[in-house]
Amino acid sequence: MFSWFRKRRSTPTAAHRLRSRDEISAAAKVDLAELAPGIIPYLGLVSYLQLEIYEAASRAVADAPDLVAKEVLSNAAGLSLNKYKEFAAELRRRQRDPATVMEPYSHSINRYTDRVSPANWNELLLLVYLCGGFFEDFFSQLARGLDDKYGDSAAEILSSDSGRSEVAMLLERAIRDNPKNGDRLALWGRRLVGDSLLVARSTLVLSDNSDDDEKKIEPVFTELISTHIKRMDALGLTA
Amino acid sequence: MFSWFRKRRSTPTAAHRLRSRDEISAAAKVDLAELAPGIIPYLGLVSYLQLEIYEAASRAVADAPDLVAKEVLSNAAGLSLNKYKEFAAELRRRQRDPATVMEPYSHSINRYTDRVSPANWNELLLLVYLCGGFFEDFFSQLARGLDDKYGDSAAEILSSDSGRSEVAMLLERAIRDNPKNGDRLALWGRRLVGDSLLVARSTLVLSDNSDDDEKKIEPVFTELISTHIKRMDALGLTA
Repeated sequence: MFSWFRKRRSTPTAAHRLRSRDEISAAAKVDLAELAPGIIPYLGLVSYLQLEIYEAASRAVADAPDLVAKEVLSNAAGLSLNKYKEFAAELRRRQRDPATVMEPYSHSINRYTDRVSPANWNELLLLVYLCGGFFEDFFSQLARGLDDKYGDSAAEILSSDSGRSEVAMLLERAIRDNPKNGDRLALWGRRLVGDSLLVARSTLVLSDNSDDDEKKIEPVFTELISTHIKRMDALGLTA
Repeated sequence: MFSWFRKRRSTPTAAHRLRSRDEISAAAKVDLAELAPGIIPYLGLVSYLQLEIYEAASRAVADAPDLVAKEVLSNAAGLSLNKYKEFAAELRRRQRDPATVMEPYSHSINRYTDRVSPANWNELLLLVYLCGGFFEDFFSQLARGLDDKYGDSAAEILSSDSGRSEVAMLLERAIRDNPKNGDRLALWGRRLVGDSLLVARSTLVLSDNSDDDEKKIEPVFTELISTHIKRMDALGLTA
């Protein structure tokens, strides 16, 4: 499977067994720390994905049917853009040009955005809501595994207000007004998680014989999927 | 001709004669003060137009051919979005809902954006650069005529950094790389000014028999067109 990063160090074998919810969380942090990329590639990727969420939210502003929706979506777009800017500023503080650091991920991220191309405005909103949440969860967990003092700041930026709970309210309204929207969005939400998992996975530094790594990744991804399903569930999209 | 506002008060007749550059500037300020709308419609319109510039810049981010262009355009988009937010916040401080105050202008602004629909990415960039500059000049002048203490703050917000000089550099590059781009953009720039003048004009409070008003508007619009031409000229689009 594709990975942006090659393994830099060997890792101890992790026992693979059923775990309680708390154990999964604790294990997730430890395991991801072992598979986290360096700070520069991390900043390049997390910047790029925030830029993509900003772009998606901005497309949704342009197609919004009314000014209330424009207000909600432009707020979400602005907050993602601010997060992008904070990461880009950190790269500049480290004498790196953000465009140059992000460039290697262009091909994969363009392929991802081509694959998750929404058919209508509601699908675009669900993409902003679910993928924005998914990547912020993932990169925020990964931040704690970074071997760099910026890790905590990165996690804090990612966990700060995203303006997307109001986007969820726009979706609730669309589903309430027309239950058929809900049927289509339920399918769409399931498709989004698959492609987003692939992008998240390719961020990790995996070894060539990756059986051990798979065991480390599994609980992390189980948790990410579980949070994704909770977001779908709150919208009534998991029936 | 269409106007969003009806005349609220009679105005003295202005002598119509040739004026020197400095006289035009001084006269422009006085005349616009007499034709300025109230603070609430002013804030509604200026918010809406900033939102449109933000949307246009964001579309340009999405279609940008490289990450350097994305960086330049997302910065310009973010600065316009911040200006929009400041005006919307001022409306809220006055217990007004921004969406409700902006709503009456939806039809006219949608008609405007339909008319100035760019055929390609370079045309979109020129729209962001020229129309952003045009409306900020116009509303910044109009701000000084507002019968409200917020006038100075509005002018200050509008005159603050817009990130558009870097957008002009992207256009310079496109024109240098392919002179044919310049020919098409020269035509496009001329079209933009006409439609933008109509929107600016409809902002003013005009009397039914508007001969006197025309005499007041003329020097203001002469100055706006002159600044527009300077921007075109700097890009070599006025040959």
